[in-house]
Amino acid sequence: MNTLPIGIFDSGVGGLTVLQAMRRRLPNENLIYLGDTARVPYGTKSRATVERYAIEDAAFLVRKGVKLIVVACNTASAMGRERLRRDFPTLFLTVLGPGTRAAARATRNRRLGVIATEATIESGAYEHGIREACGKKEVAIFSKACPLFVPLAEEGELDSEITRRVAEKYLLPLREQQIDTLVLGCTHYPLLKPVIAEVMGEQVALVDSAEAVAAEVESLLRGRDWLNTQDAPGTSQFYVTDAAQRFHRIAEQFLGEPLTHLEAVEVWGHDRLQA
Amino acid sequence: MNTLPIGIFDSGVGGLTVLQAMRRRLPNENLIYLGDTARVPYGTKSRATVERYAIEDAAFLVRKGVKLIVVACNTASAMGRERLRRDFPTLFLTVLGPGTRAAARATRNRRLGVIATEATIESGAYEHGIREACGKKEVAIFSKACPLFVPLAEEGELDSEITRRVAEKYLLPLREQQIDTLVLGCTHYPLLKPVIAEVMGEQVALVDSAEAVAAEVESLLRGRDWLNTQDAPGTSQFYVTDAAQRFHRIAEQFLGEPLTHLEAVEVWGHDRLQA
Repeated sequence: MNTLPIGIFDSGVGGLTVLQAMRRRLPNENLIYLGDTARVPYGTKSRATVERYAIEDAAFLVRKGVKLIVVACNTASAMGRERLRRDFPTLFLTVLGPGTRAAARATRNRRLGVIATEATIESGAYEHGIREACGKKEVAIFSKACPLFVPLAEEGELDSEITRRVAEKYLLPLREQQIDTLVLGCTHYPLLKPVIAEVMGEQVALVDSAEAVAAEVESLLRGRDWLNTQDAPGTSQFYVTDAAQRFHRIAEQFLGEPLTHLEAVEVWGHDRLQA
Repeated sequence: MNTLPIGIFDSGVGGLTVLQAMRRRLPNENLIYLGDTARVPYGTKSRATVERYAIEDAAFLVRKGVKLIVVACNTASAMGRERLRRDFPTLFLTVLGPGTRAAARATRNRRLGVIATEATIESGAYEHGIREACGKKEVAIFSKACPLFVPLAEEGELDSEITRRVAEKYLLPLREQQIDTLVLGCTHYPLLKPVIAEVMGEQVALVDSAEAVAAEVESLLRGRDWLNTQDAPGTSQFYVTDAAQRFHRIAEQFLGEPLTHLEAVEVWGHDRLQA
């Protein structure tokens, strides 16, 4: 198993924050990234549709022969994780688990906020996961869907006056609840971290699950003795379902290095039967 | 042919502006609306993908036995109209044609602006269409993609301070060009008309293609003697590919009347061969 690649999927470019954290912590692993850019975004769609998309994405990575699949999309994690674990024999790690555990470790006053897409918030998955991670301790959790954050991030409005106003609209009600920890429950949101931090104030810890995911991937693989022990640096392969040029531009800008392998593929119509 | 329904498709809810204009002008026609809410938006995707989606949407309506298909999505019109006309024997009317002709009639100083999605602007279809509609007269056309307008409209930020700032960012450069006519080249944009009008000033005519489309549908059907001459009011049937509840809420709010027929359907994987 050691030399097999790790698969990562997201609805678009957001999961690159997770890939980057894994690349840094696990430099010898071979990574395969799939961005479902033909059907982005997932966060405004129904459970049935997000489940189907997640299964098709996972089936593509299974056919690539991966040893582990990281679900880097919070919406797909919240809506699809049960179906994925039921339908595939593959090992899965979703961004949700590491994110909720990191939040439980970070809070002091046990008043936490969660921001995510509409679909993720409606699923209640973060709230449920944080309560579980906090064990028997009582916690107060305040959730807020921030639907304009993804398009703002995708349009590169990372630190503008417009983004600041949108952030104030979404976040000031959370700030009033005197939370000490805010979970960024969407892989796009770390791109807006400076604005979010400014609005929330420095007393609020921002939990970005990318680092937490990379740490859990490492310990999971180490526990099974599946780490890649090759001396050479690992490779990164990228697949998208649409608009490869746009992805290429954003990914190179974000990762700060050229993409050596980028390919447009079709994933629809493949389910577990063809996997 | 007379009693057959008219099909209308859009990537989501935006085409309801076209349906509403047709309902008013052609009260006896039976209308079938398809919103591809599982794959919305189209405006950030590639030509190949938008073409495929448009063909699958049209094939669904062809199977419903329509006499005419109105492509109410500007992106699908700009990217897909050639493939649609080549692959189907059906009569098509895209929002693009009526919109460009209405713009050519409206301008006095022959300086026009076009706002639309990235994909529509990149296609150059409006610019080409307006030049064609203006015949031999010289015109200056200024185009601007407004990618945040669709999510703002979808989130109901129709008349807020945030939307005003976004509108200023996109539109002030067009205003400086002293255009006298601005084409709203996306069916979502009429929802933001008050803010757009405020930023552009009252000397600029806003061309919203919904009315122009309804007028051309009427004259097209009249010319072929295909108008529905029934006395009873026509019916409206709605189909969506995802999240029927969300569509239901937005559509009833927008149309101001209850939806009598709304159904979730699958359109993918059907192309002209199965049509």
